[in-house]
Amino acid sequence: MPAVLTHNAYGKSQVRLTKVSRHADRHDLKELSIAIQLEGDFVASYTSGDNSRIVATDTMKNTVYALAKKHPFSAIEELGELLARHFLESYGHVSAVTVDLMEQPWQRMVVDGKEHPSCFIRRGDEKRTATVMLTRKEKHVESGLDNLLILKTTDSAFSGFIQDPYTTLRDADDRIFATVLSANWLYSAPPADWDQAHGQIRQAMLQVFAGHKSLSVQHTLHAMGSAALDACSAIEAITLRMPNKHHLLVNLQLFGMQNNNEIFVPTDEPYGLIVGTLRRG
Amino acid sequence: MPAVLTHNAYGKSQVRLTKVSRHADRHDLKELSIAIQLEGDFVASYTSGDNSRIVATDTMKNTVYALAKKHPFSAIEELGELLARHFLESYGHVSAVTVDLMEQPWQRMVVDGKEHPSCFIRRGDEKRTATVMLTRKEKHVESGLDNLLILKTTDSAFSGFIQDPYTTLRDADDRIFATVLSANWLYSAPPADWDQAHGQIRQAMLQVFAGHKSLSVQHTLHAMGSAALDACSAIEAITLRMPNKHHLLVNLQLFGMQNNNEIFVPTDEPYGLIVGTLRRG
Amino acid sequence: MPAVLTHNAYGKSQVRLTKVSRHADRHDLKELSIAIQLEGDFVASYTSGDNSRIVATDTMKNTVYALAKKHPFSAIEELGELLARHFLESYGHVSAVTVDLMEQPWQRMVVDGKEHPSCFIRRGDEKRTATVMLTRKEKHVESGLDNLLILKTTDSAFSGFIQDPYTTLRDADDRIFATVLSANWLYSAPPADWDQAHGQIRQAMLQVFAGHKSLSVQHTLHAMGSAALDACSAIEAITLRMPNKHHLLVNLQLFGMQNNNEIFVPTDEPYGLIVGTLRRG
Amino acid sequence: MPAVLTHNAYGKSQVRLTKVSRHADRHDLKELSIAIQLEGDFVASYTSGDNSRIVATDTMKNTVYALAKKHPFSAIEELGELLARHFLESYGHVSAVTVDLMEQPWQRMVVDGKEHPSCFIRRGDEKRTATVMLTRKEKHVESGLDNLLILKTTDSAFSGFIQDPYTTLRDADDRIFATVLSANWLYSAPPADWDQAHGQIRQAMLQVFAGHKSLSVQHTLHAMGSAALDACSAIEAITLRMPNKHHLLVNLQLFGMQNNNEIFVPTDEPYGLIVGTLRRG
Repeated sequence: MPAVLTHNAYGKSQVRLTKVSRHADRHDLKELSIAIQLEGDFVASYTSGDNSRIVATDTMKNTVYALAKKHPFSAIEELGELLARHFLESYGHVSAVTVDLMEQPWQRMVVDGKEHPSCFIRRGDEKRTATVMLTRKEKHVESGLDNLLILKTTDSAFSGFIQDPYTTLRDADDRIFATVLSANWLYSAPPADWDQAHGQIRQAMLQVFAGHKSLSVQHTLHAMGSAALDACSAIEAITLRMPNKHHLLVNLQLFGMQNNNEIFVPTDEPYGLIVGTLRRG
Repeated sequence: MPAVLTHNAYGKSQVRLTKVSRHADRHDLKELSIAIQLEGDFVASYTSGDNSRIVATDTMKNTVYALAKKHPFSAIEELGELLARHFLESYGHVSAVTVDLMEQPWQRMVVDGKEHPSCFIRRGDEKRTATVMLTRKEKHVESGLDNLLILKTTDSAFSGFIQDPYTTLRDADDRIFATVLSANWLYSAPPADWDQAHGQIRQAMLQVFAGHKSLSVQHTLHAMGSAALDACSAIEAITLRMPNKHHLLVNLQLFGMQNNNEIFVPTDEPYGLIVGTLRRG
Repeated sequence: MPAVLTHNAYGKSQVRLTKVSRHADRHDLKELSIAIQLEGDFVASYTSGDNSRIVATDTMKNTVYALAKKHPFSAIEELGELLARHFLESYGHVSAVTVDLMEQPWQRMVVDGKEHPSCFIRRGDEKRTATVMLTRKEKHVESGLDNLLILKTTDSAFSGFIQDPYTTLRDADDRIFATVLSANWLYSAPPADWDQAHGQIRQAMLQVFAGHKSLSVQHTLHAMGSAALDACSAIEAITLRMPNKHHLLVNLQLFGMQNNNEIFVPTDEPYGLIVGTLRRG
Repeated sequence: MPAVLTHNAYGKSQVRLTKVSRHADRHDLKELSIAIQLEGDFVASYTSGDNSRIVATDTMKNTVYALAKKHPFSAIEELGELLARHFLESYGHVSAVTVDLMEQPWQRMVVDGKEHPSCFIRRGDEKRTATVMLTRKEKHVESGLDNLLILKTTDSAFSGFIQDPYTTLRDADDRIFATVLSANWLYSAPPADWDQAHGQIRQAMLQVFAGHKSLSVQHTLHAMGSAALDACSAIEAITLRMPNKHHLLVNLQLFGMQNNNEIFVPTDEPYGLIVGTLRRG
């Protein structure tokens, strides 16, 4: 029996774009990386090498540059929808377009106490992300953030877990809690202002992280997700992914010293990984 | 209305393990990286910080080392099932266990024309992968390979694609075709020999890649997937992911030279990305 | 003739350390990565496997944790000197100790407009670095910064360069100038305050970068280095390393559009690399 | 007093090149990454932005492609010398040219037991390297290898080292020895065949690594370096850099099991780092 192609998709990834908007008094700067994937009736290209329905991925790349020039856009969610709509409207045989966008953060450099109009500095590895998925019937916009490294030195415990024959971890009533937060949330309706909604959700999560009397990563994840839902009524669900960046307390007794929660080894592997999705009840 | 936790999972990732099996005439070496995720009734830990049903991720790490010692295993699929079964059988409130395994390849060093019994050399970035997912009712085993970089210098064309206002790519009748193959396949039943099945599927895909008169990445992906299904009756479906590692022909006419498909710039970004899933018809 | 060992050194690298200083009103946090290399009379360990004069690299790691506990330190330069001095004073056969330190930046999280006493956020990939090298006769302290990504959207030109048969680059009178600054400077004497000196030098370089009418990367590098020497009398020399993170102007004329210095492709490779060392005249 | 520019250099890095040599019966494939740095009289570009003596780094990139096309070359050392000579001969104000070359390994794919004439597979992360440095008076050619991961499961001990108050490491009489070898050697005269010389030196080092009764990394490094000098009379010195990729024995006694040197955790950090240079006596 011959094989059946049950799923196919293709597109261009890591299309990098820097856009400078040159205003009289200042320049604005955006740096993005974009990935586009098309689904639709492309079976003949797979089965017989018939490319007559194929939009070249090189064309997709050009389209990103052309549309980014043609249309002023502020939030990455807007550019994502522009691109998705373009492919869906241009090609009847395309059934779904997914655009993933990632924004690298640039901040204005502060010189002599003032923000410079045309000079920028990269602040942090935190990325702003968005995924826009459009079909003939549906629109699905998720926004998020990625790679946000946060740490608290107190108000974090972990105890009362299961003791089994392979358990060696001791209860901790005051440990370092560090994570690289990744979160994405689904909009039920477009917010009035994408940037403002993003800022509110981000700030709500950070505020909870800072203030929470954490009994576990799970516990804090849930509180952060709840706060995000409270902070922005335009979102219906949020998923958080919180790897536990373990900080191991160094045993200094061997050297005749007491380690009063002062000296730690930060480790990258192995790491605990906690995920959860919360939805408006 | 309060938030509802609609999905949760947690576990330990990047648990690294080297196992040396010391036989009289030779040592065998395996290097793995393992991730475990549990699903089940953990809601109280999220909502109220009640850890009484939580298996610490540190315990999961210890369990990997203990079971890897206790049970001889040959293929990573076997270790994956051992681990998944352990957590499901030990804890009634766990409903699903997912174990992802990745094997780093070591080969025996050849000294004086002979394979050395206890000395090894890392060959390649190609990884062997497996995912074992167990619930109270189901078992799901996927195997795969990742990061296999292959390239052909001829028998690859791409032409006849859509010309739209943003198209600048020219037809190519003889281009370099390079990709970093990632594939994973679903077993309908355990094969007689995991290693042999893996080898047959891998070899079938490589053989097609080498010999195919490729009219596009899609075209070759489909042929490779079909060959994999043909090569091993124990699998019911296979997904291939083939990024197009573009090699750009350098324009040497500016320097008075003809570039007869000789001098290229290999690039990492942007890249075309082609995916497809084939299922036994 | 037998081989002669003309140079040898060994040590421990990537010793990671997080130190939390717990004050009544706030916690301070430092995250470091440290590498130690010893030189001295270790020849017998190389030639005959005699380890009697070898300080195990594992011992070096323990020493880092013990000294970081014992001695309060503020700047990484201080910890570097403590460590170097320890090995030189403990072992008469050690002739030189080099300690490389790298500090990962953490900032206090701002919650409700106030800096939080125990919650931190990672800001940026910029690292603060130091190298302390001690012998029986000399002390050599270099400090620096690494991985500081900066960009200006105007006041950067590059023209009038050599035209040869392989030149295709056009003169640019207004291009994007982006670089990942790495700099290190040599102290002639310890400054009154390591942190303050570091801040002055860093700020002097950034201010010049922002304001300079750049005619080339070389031109701006020189101006930045001069400003650093002016800013801190305790340093006698500075080396800057400035890769040119090229931003390629996209040709949109093919699509009937004018690209008024708006749409660029940021690229990682290939990249120009400009270095220079300035010394007080 | 004004600052003095005491050192300057600039060039292009990560110029990537794939060259396909199309023979009647087979295609040959080389993939390189090249960096060029020029030294010379460039002071005016630094101090006053006068670019009249500047070869644009973009021109250097073009030169790589043009010369790689014009001149057949087999070993990377040959291309390095071609490039260095080009810049020195074309520009009287250039005093020194350094060309770093790195070759990514491709092997012919084996299909039906035969090497395929035009299909290739990436084998390993090991790189072949070369540095060619030319001045008006000197030529300096170093070749090397990088990122060669090797491991032996026996014949490695480490004992008798210094016991001090911070020592906790126990003597080991049979441990795993793993390293990522990096080596480079200086030719006193060009060998008859660059590839053959490289192969002999590499094989000599591997053979010693496999067979050596190692008493420490230092001990084996010295033996490997000596063997390299013996294997190829055209080299006068060799430097080896051997990070110790520690494999930690897991304590299974807590679970009632004996770990007979079977179960290890491979770790990336911290790591011992041992270096040494041997010269013909």
